[in-house]
Amino acid sequence: MRAFIVLGHKVPLTPNFSLNDLPGSAGRLDILCRCVTAAFCLSHGIRRDVTVYLVLQNQIVLRLEGSWLKHLNPDERSTAALIQKALKAFRAGGEIESTPGIFVACGSLPDVLKRVTDEGLTVYWLHERGSPMRQAELKPNAAFVLSDHLEFLPEEEAILESLPRLSLGPLSLHADHCIVLAHNELDVRAGLASDRTSV
Amino acid sequence: MRAFIVLGHKVPLTPNFSLNDLPGSAGRLDILCRCVTAAFCLSHGIRRDVTVYLVLQNQIVLRLEGSWLKHLNPDERSTAALIQKALKAFRAGGEIESTPGIFVACGSLPDVLKRVTDEGLTVYWLHERGSPMRQAELKPNAAFVLSDHLEFLPEEEAILESLPRLSLGPLSLHADHCIVLAHNELDVRAGLASDRTSV
Repeated sequence: MRAFIVLGHKVPLTPNFSLNDLPGSAGRLDILCRCVTAAFCLSHGIRRDVTVYLVLQNQIVLRLEGSWLKHLNPDERSTAALIQKALKAFRAGGEIESTPGIFVACGSLPDVLKRVTDEGLTVYWLHERGSPMRQAELKPNAAFVLSDHLEFLPEEEAILESLPRLSLGPLSLHADHCIVLAHNELDVRAGLASDRTSV
Repeated sequence: MRAFIVLGHKVPLTPNFSLNDLPGSAGRLDILCRCVTAAFCLSHGIRRDVTVYLVLQNQIVLRLEGSWLKHLNPDERSTAALIQKALKAFRAGGEIESTPGIFVACGSLPDVLKRVTDEGLTVYWLHERGSPMRQAELKPNAAFVLSDHLEFLPEEEAILESLPRLSLGPLSLHADHCIVLAHNELDVRAGLASDRTSV
């Protein structure tokens, strides 16, 4: 089981944005859409053992569950349309399933961290000044915290500071590219482990 | 110097498509747009030492030069608009620069392979049944050949069969995700090499 927790600092909390302007009026929603694609989309299929949490302005959480997800395509616009539907369906009460596998509710970064920890996942903070992931111990049941195009805020850093920090290379990368690399690291390790078992 | 050669089998040769329908009427142009983003876009900057070749239906080649590229943003729609402009500017004669750093001309996969080889790059075929890249010898001046959502055609395989094949992991991945992984492999190796030099 893997999870990706992506902080969207500027994505609006209402569906009042244009699908033609994801980087502008939608507050860089294009980044979050590419994160969803990187987390779920294989060349010919969906990773079913993945959950993505999009934490919008630390107030609304969209939870996307690979095991139940439907209607997800790899392009930004159609993913943004699913997110827009979720924001339309949002009510201040309990969690609502806006389309199959996409849930929306009030929520914050601490709420999500508690949830994934309760589910038995080890949480890692993807951070430019972390230990190199390739050499790090890494649990197969892992959750990764990432930010959109903005740096982590001081109050977010205070919440995350006790987590192990992992870096992915010498350059500063887009969040969705970090998800690709984290997946690949776990895929390669799992592949090597199964090779060893099969010998 | 790095290059990525991406084969677009269904992208139209004319600009008559809608930016609202990249996966449909634009023949999965969304994939090629994400490839461009993966090839060039860092978190806060552009990789200047990269060239991307988009080979459309083995007839038209768009060449994107990182060293001169302007107006590139990470989202699919704005990249598709640049590609649409290039297809509008295309004439059957010589190469035309449609916007800064984007060149369009008649061309085919063999033309592009000859060009990058003449420039001194070693060409690798990214292939699910290749040798694992992490363990492979890899030249820093490397070009990688990838396909869009479709398998390589038999006539393309015939052209590519003499090239070294490299795989990136145990799963079949999207082309843009392969570009992220190839970049990271070279980044990590270059980082380790510079660490060694600086010791």
